Amino acid sequence: MKRIPAGTAYRPAILPTINQRRLMRDLNAIGRIGIGNRGAVTRLVFSVKELRSRQVLIHLMRQAGLKIHIDGIGNIFGRLDGSDAKAPAVLAGSHLDTVVHGGKYDGPVGVIGALEAIRTISENGVAIRSPLEVVCFVGEESSRFGFSTLGSSLLAGQVHPKDLANAVDAQGTKLADVLASLGIAQKKLHGLTRDSKTLKAYFELHIEQGPILEAIGKRIGLVTSIAAPSRFRIIFTGQADHSGTTPMEMRKDALVAAAQLIEFIEMTCRKFSSMAKGRVVGTVGALKIEPGVINAVPGKAELSVDIRSITAPSKDRVARLVKKEAQSIARRRAIGVEVLTIREEDPVPLDKRLLRVTKGICAEKQIVYEIMPSGAGHDAMQMAKITPAAMIFIPSQRGISHNPLEWTDPDDIGLGAQLLMETMIRVANENF
Amino acid sequence: MKRIPAGTAYRPAILPTINQRRLMRDLNAIGRIGIGNRGAVTRLVFSVKELRSRQVLIHLMRQAGLKIHIDGIGNIFGRLDGSDAKAPAVLAGSHLDTVVHGGKYDGPVGVIGALEAIRTISENGVAIRSPLEVVCFVGEESSRFGFSTLGSSLLAGQVHPKDLANAVDAQGTKLADVLASLGIAQKKLHGLTRDSKTLKAYFELHIEQGPILEAIGKRIGLVTSIAAPSRFRIIFTGQADHSGTTPMEMRKDALVAAAQLIEFIEMTCRKFSSMAKGRVVGTVGALKIEPGVINAVPGKAELSVDIRSITAPSKDRVARLVKKEAQSIARRRAIGVEVLTIREEDPVPLDKRLLRVTKGICAEKQIVYEIMPSGAGHDAMQMAKITPAAMIFIPSQRGISHNPLEWTDPDDIGLGAQLLMETMIRVANENF
Repeated sequence: MKRIPAGTAYRPAILPTINQRRLMRDLNAIGRIGIGNRGAVTRLVFSVKELRSRQVLIHLMRQAGLKIHIDGIGNIFGRLDGSDAKAPAVLAGSHLDTVVHGGKYDGPVGVIGALEAIRTISENGVAIRSPLEVVCFVGEESSRFGFSTLGSSLLAGQVHPKDLANAVDAQGTKLADVLASLGIAQKKLHGLTRDSKTLKAYFELHIEQGPILEAIGKRIGLVTSIAAPSRFRIIFTGQADHSGTTPMEMRKDALVAAAQLIEFIEMTCRKFSSMAKGRVVGTVGALKIEPGVINAVPGKAELSVDIRSITAPSKDRVARLVKKEAQSIARRRAIGVEVLTIREEDPVPLDKRLLRVTKGICAEKQIVYEIMPSGAGHDAMQMAKITPAAMIFIPSQRGISHNPLEWTDPDDIGLGAQLLMETMIRVANENF
Repeated sequence: MKRIPAGTAYRPAILPTINQRRLMRDLNAIGRIGIGNRGAVTRLVFSVKELRSRQVLIHLMRQAGLKIHIDGIGNIFGRLDGSDAKAPAVLAGSHLDTVVHGGKYDGPVGVIGALEAIRTISENGVAIRSPLEVVCFVGEESSRFGFSTLGSSLLAGQVHPKDLANAVDAQGTKLADVLASLGIAQKKLHGLTRDSKTLKAYFELHIEQGPILEAIGKRIGLVTSIAAPSRFRIIFTGQADHSGTTPMEMRKDALVAAAQLIEFIEMTCRKFSSMAKGRVVGTVGALKIEPGVINAVPGKAELSVDIRSITAPSKDRVARLVKKEAQSIARRRAIGVEVLTIREEDPVPLDKRLLRVTKGICAEKQIVYEIMPSGAGHDAMQMAKITPAAMIFIPSQRGISHNPLEWTDPDDIGLGAQLLMETMIRVANENF
């Protein structure tokens, strides 16, 4: 191993090229796990399919000769040592879990992309000072438990015990029970926090999941900040009645109340949708009614609301308006209402110096890039709290994600992985 | 057995009194099957609980010495022979299946009430010419398969094979598969139609399931006609997208479209809610969205709509307006829409002569009654197509039904069963 003395900057004269074919082969192998009708991929966190995808990754890491470490929640680290055993590590990764009926690139591109970068470095004997680590975080998607970036939040020391206590999936299974059944001791989770001193930087390659890069014809996006969600559940409680015998004027229909709120959320977010007003988006993604049968007036309606913005004040203002309107609808209809906070986060700025390094490499290689915020949350949001973090976006066809039609050109995936690799080498070998 | 010659009217001088205590004991025994939290009763058709309730009924019929017959779909008949073996039978009954989280009286009051009437007649040796039959129909509620009055529809020859082919429950289980698994051959179901010549009349004692009798302080309602539902499913198809990265103006949110339609249905039905305008009620009782997770814009929303009225033109007019509005919402939002008819029924007038008999008995006994339509559908609706049919209502506290809070005073249940018994005796022994 070539020894690079500390305090000096080392730049290899010739850099290898990542193996795009191998990268796509492994991405497709992961993409087949949990595949269903019309190519829809479902690997909910802690499901059999999701656990299987982790096993495949471990196998690939082992083949690449990486040192494997799996922490208490199941985050997987594959490490390539650098010449300086005491130097902090440069991490890169993402997640393998998906939404219900999602696509094959949201998450895996960042994990397999980082693996490809590191194994290319390793097999070409590129000298590195800092160790490199590919990481797969557990449970980035909130689809199962309404709780996002579980693994990276634990690493960043951002989880409060009460956050986990409320989490429950659509089948009524508690996250706490799932952890127990997998032999994961909840008490020990708070010890997973990683010491900042062991980290030099975190990189995440990800599909944009939005329509912007495709619309402007650029293949690389460099991310400045990550919009954060306010998430809450609103429960209207009216009265379940017979749908045939209860006159319209005597009903306490919880679903009509929910419908009015859903319309209000769309209308209000449209008012705040410009860049100047904080680019707010608001969604009711889940709605559960009871008894939920054709011949009964719904007595209960439970909505999951997700409000996001790149500025905290805009997000908070819209969230406040929505909660106020829920109260007002309930008052007008003489029914009950309850608001339960799921998660409250602030937008996260990413590291300006790392952004400058990636910009520099793009300029050298004449890659046209876009400087942009991220509308979606990512593990980088949590990692930014304990180490400098950066994200590289590649285009999503028609902006579609969380959908079987999710698609990115393999050449764009290859370009993203190459840029990731070159940035990691530079950050591992130089002070920035 | 006292022989009553045909063509003569026989009126016993003294009529026995039904055993209200025994009636309530058996009603409560049925009510405990499928009971859950806060007294909610769930006995969905063909569920283990529902099948168990039928077994208890068979046991009670056997104890009462009735001749038991179970037909191909599972309708149960308990017969007490009259003096004329060739005379057509006087039937009375209802159903034992319930909605999800329903009460204990909707259905069982009519079955156990009829059983109590017939066993009182039997044990007191009251002379009857026509045989009497208590009947328990299968699947009156549409809660599981969106298909109501299954057993009585088959008896009345009102089921088309395609009606059964589309029926599927919330777990995705097809009615056709459930029938097959229970060993019920679908081919033979069309042979269940009962010959009108074997029937003299059908009676159904039922709780009102509405607030009227309690509001006017009367204990008996005599039903003139049954409001009928138009039921259809509306499916909006937009596009599932990431809830964080898809700007408001680029969304095709199927749930917001559904919300607008839900509000429209309430508004329109309120306009047609007066007696003069046909007393229309409209309900969206079930709503399913996909993918149905907090971080995805809903790409699909499926609503179950139930519109009812006591006049066909009002019902049809509102149903037409709702379907038109669904099209117009889909057009405005540039999303897809599909309307699937579940069932289309016309309001059913009940038999005027039977009503006159019951009215006469009420007058003799000085029972204050109300002449009224039924907002809810009942098995009597189907039976009216093959024999003269009548219904007796007893009050529902606060009009609540399809709810664990469903409640009727035991004295009112007893009064209803007594009136049912006396009417059955008169109809069995006289020409009307």
